[in-house]
Amino acid sequence: MVKQVLLSSKYPSWMLFSVLLNLFLIANTFVGGEWASLLLNWSSRAAAEAEAVAEIGCSGHGRAYLDGLLGDGNEPVCECNTCYTGPNCSEFIPHCTANADGGDPLFLEPFWMQHSTSSALVVSGWHRMSYNYNDNTWISSQLESLIRKLHAFVSNAVTRNRYIVFGAGSTQILNAAAYALSLENTSSQSPTRVIASVPYYSLYKNQVEYFDSEKFEFEGDDHTWRNTSANVIEFVTSPNNPDGQLNKAIVDGPNVKTIYDRAYYWPHFTPIPAPADEDFMVFTLSKLTGHAGSRFGWAIIKDETVFNRMIIHIQLNSLGVSKDTQLRAFKLLKAVLEEGTEIFDFGYRTMKMRWDRLVTTLSLSNRFSLQKFNPQYCIFYCKIRDFSPAYAWVKCEREEDNDCHAVLKAANIIGRQGNVFGSKDRYVRLSLVRSQDDFDILIQRLQKLVSEEVGSQTT
Amino acid sequence: MVKQVLLSSKYPSWMLFSVLLNLFLIANTFVGGEWASLLLNWSSRAAAEAEAVAEIGCSGHGRAYLDGLLGDGNEPVCECNTCYTGPNCSEFIPHCTANADGGDPLFLEPFWMQHSTSSALVVSGWHRMSYNYNDNTWISSQLESLIRKLHAFVSNAVTRNRYIVFGAGSTQILNAAAYALSLENTSSQSPTRVIASVPYYSLYKNQVEYFDSEKFEFEGDDHTWRNTSANVIEFVTSPNNPDGQLNKAIVDGPNVKTIYDRAYYWPHFTPIPAPADEDFMVFTLSKLTGHAGSRFGWAIIKDETVFNRMIIHIQLNSLGVSKDTQLRAFKLLKAVLEEGTEIFDFGYRTMKMRWDRLVTTLSLSNRFSLQKFNPQYCIFYCKIRDFSPAYAWVKCEREEDNDCHAVLKAANIIGRQGNVFGSKDRYVRLSLVRSQDDFDILIQRLQKLVSEEVGSQTT
Repeated sequence: MVKQVLLSSKYPSWMLFSVLLNLFLIANTFVGGEWASLLLNWSSRAAAEAEAVAEIGCSGHGRAYLDGLLGDGNEPVCECNTCYTGPNCSEFIPHCTANADGGDPLFLEPFWMQHSTSSALVVSGWHRMSYNYNDNTWISSQLESLIRKLHAFVSNAVTRNRYIVFGAGSTQILNAAAYALSLENTSSQSPTRVIASVPYYSLYKNQVEYFDSEKFEFEGDDHTWRNTSANVIEFVTSPNNPDGQLNKAIVDGPNVKTIYDRAYYWPHFTPIPAPADEDFMVFTLSKLTGHAGSRFGWAIIKDETVFNRMIIHIQLNSLGVSKDTQLRAFKLLKAVLEEGTEIFDFGYRTMKMRWDRLVTTLSLSNRFSLQKFNPQYCIFYCKIRDFSPAYAWVKCEREEDNDCHAVLKAANIIGRQGNVFGSKDRYVRLSLVRSQDDFDILIQRLQKLVSEEVGSQTT
Repeated sequence: MVKQVLLSSKYPSWMLFSVLLNLFLIANTFVGGEWASLLLNWSSRAAAEAEAVAEIGCSGHGRAYLDGLLGDGNEPVCECNTCYTGPNCSEFIPHCTANADGGDPLFLEPFWMQHSTSSALVVSGWHRMSYNYNDNTWISSQLESLIRKLHAFVSNAVTRNRYIVFGAGSTQILNAAAYALSLENTSSQSPTRVIASVPYYSLYKNQVEYFDSEKFEFEGDDHTWRNTSANVIEFVTSPNNPDGQLNKAIVDGPNVKTIYDRAYYWPHFTPIPAPADEDFMVFTLSKLTGHAGSRFGWAIIKDETVFNRMIIHIQLNSLGVSKDTQLRAFKLLKAVLEEGTEIFDFGYRTMKMRWDRLVTTLSLSNRFSLQKFNPQYCIFYCKIRDFSPAYAWVKCEREEDNDCHAVLKAANIIGRQGNVFGSKDRYVRLSLVRSQDDFDILIQRLQKLVSEEVGSQTT
């Protein structure tokens, strides 16, 4: 019939066109369909599943996950933020407690929702089953090279001629470091003293005390070790957790080793005055991309012997770091680099806005004070910049308020006690890196507290 | 024009049909396209990337990975198995060494290539960024429930009224267990003795010696502790690594704690005589699905105090287990359960075939002998079944061959020395769980060795 139509002149030309168009569209539909199914073959079911879960609306106050809690229909349901409930997380729980305790870096979650395409990851069932990569290490050379590129882009650490080792978050790295550096002094009879100046991140102390090795002992903030010939390891957190200050080492001596915890040394939280250039520096994905759940950290190490000891430690501890985690970190850091300064712009903007709101809220108060910062020149943004810390280090100024945590708790706010950081309980740490919901509720509770204070002063 | 055609009677009805078909196909192409792009939105780029990498042909002797080595065009290239090389891994390296050293469980890789759809995983950029799941633990309750279902399906472990804790592979679990169980005896002045009967998996010893806690000491296979009131932890590996035997505890006493390493207690390797029902049992994904690289293991624990100590240990060690790893394990175990007995059929078939080939190869030899097994009733397959061990525990029978590893090395075979397992060097462990290529080359080298032996006997 087609031939008949094509040859015939008794039908107008648009009819020929119509028939040809039909043929083209039919061909396109079939060939196109086949091509599309070739293009997405084994991954399409998983992709459809993941997208369906991502589509579940949780009113902006929660999210559903592939491996999430299941509802009646055996489908994942919304998992709501702290102060929200209901099937769509739409119901606010009025008198709920503001959680400002842990450092869960959910403030970056909206960034990844906005950059869903560049950060999506598809994993085949047979991806990296082996203990090792092809070079017989458990460290992905592609991921290592991305990390070096990122530090070069941000100018926050020198990586040239340094070794890089991975760990299950900075947590595993920090413990490995205590072992690796105390092994330096095998000739000595007495254990290595581990110190950190107050206020310090409590994990250093907890790890050393728990693992209870014959090699080391925790001494805290002991000034007698500041000029010493003894074997000392000093943890320096810079920016510091809890107070955000760019700390420097305080101990000096021929047998002193310093571990620089650089978890927060990113433009989200601090101006970058210069690339960090210490012998032993620790970073973590958690405070860079916000993926605390992935448990991925790394150390940049000058000395080969120390690097080799780190490798042995993490091998004996967990036979290296999950290949799934390394693949995820690879994808996320690739996305970070693809997007240029975007994640840093987003991180800084968010944290600065939060800090400013907190400062404004507490500015009317004589009861509570915050740590102070002096703006510094930032080589990443090429200008003088303010700090935008991950935590508020709040001091209760009234003499009777010697338990600041209890004062805030009475106002329905959970922070972390000063004594956890080796400090006085007159201080409390409030986390500013959590979800926007958590932060908003924190500000509401603080506003109420301050307005009561101001109200009582004026009456 | 369409209206004109529809109303007109001067054109034949097939022309109307043609135009309507045009409209339908045009609509279908556009609406269909839009629908498809709605269906796969943020994941399609990642899916296409992953499928393109999976399509890279490596002649069955290698594979390319998303985070793999890059070629000149900046695309991932083939990573070849040990004895193969070339851009497509098609070139055999003639005199290459047979690697039968590590327990890399690549024998299961073809299974996952065959089950690519059910095991594919799509991860959004914002998946599980938090340290914790919604129930404030770092343990996925969905994954935990799959693990319980799987043990019930295979009947290899009792999980009812038991706690389950996760770790970065059994490696992290085993170390945590040594700490958790030695903490039982805090009143005692002397450290807990850690023992394991020879031949034992070397990690137990290496961990205890390396972590050097004041709480425990490794004693090896010390028979004096067999009936004791002292604080003792015994590691029992069942099936045993290296010899595949269904070991039982040998130590008894009021202060004895036993850790059952059940890594190989799956139908791939052993008949299942009864569900394991010990106080402390350790399993790992590595020897079940073959995903050693994922670093995922779990312990099934009767006592709540011990469970809580495990939680604290792994928290201080790595703040729990990567959410990426848990998601991967979730997807893989879901696929395992979806496929019924398939992975066990595949695992057993493969390992049995390998064991039979090895037995046949060495049957002509008087120089080398293998461990022996008695078939047992298997409650999973409901019949008497042979063992199909993960490792061969080879003995060099000639008096002068007291270094069996060296004997095999001279024949271009790398095994693992007997002394690594606390045994004599007259023994060597050969891994049978590696890739088919590694196994084939091992058999070739052994055949040559045996034919030389037989040849020299007959001449």
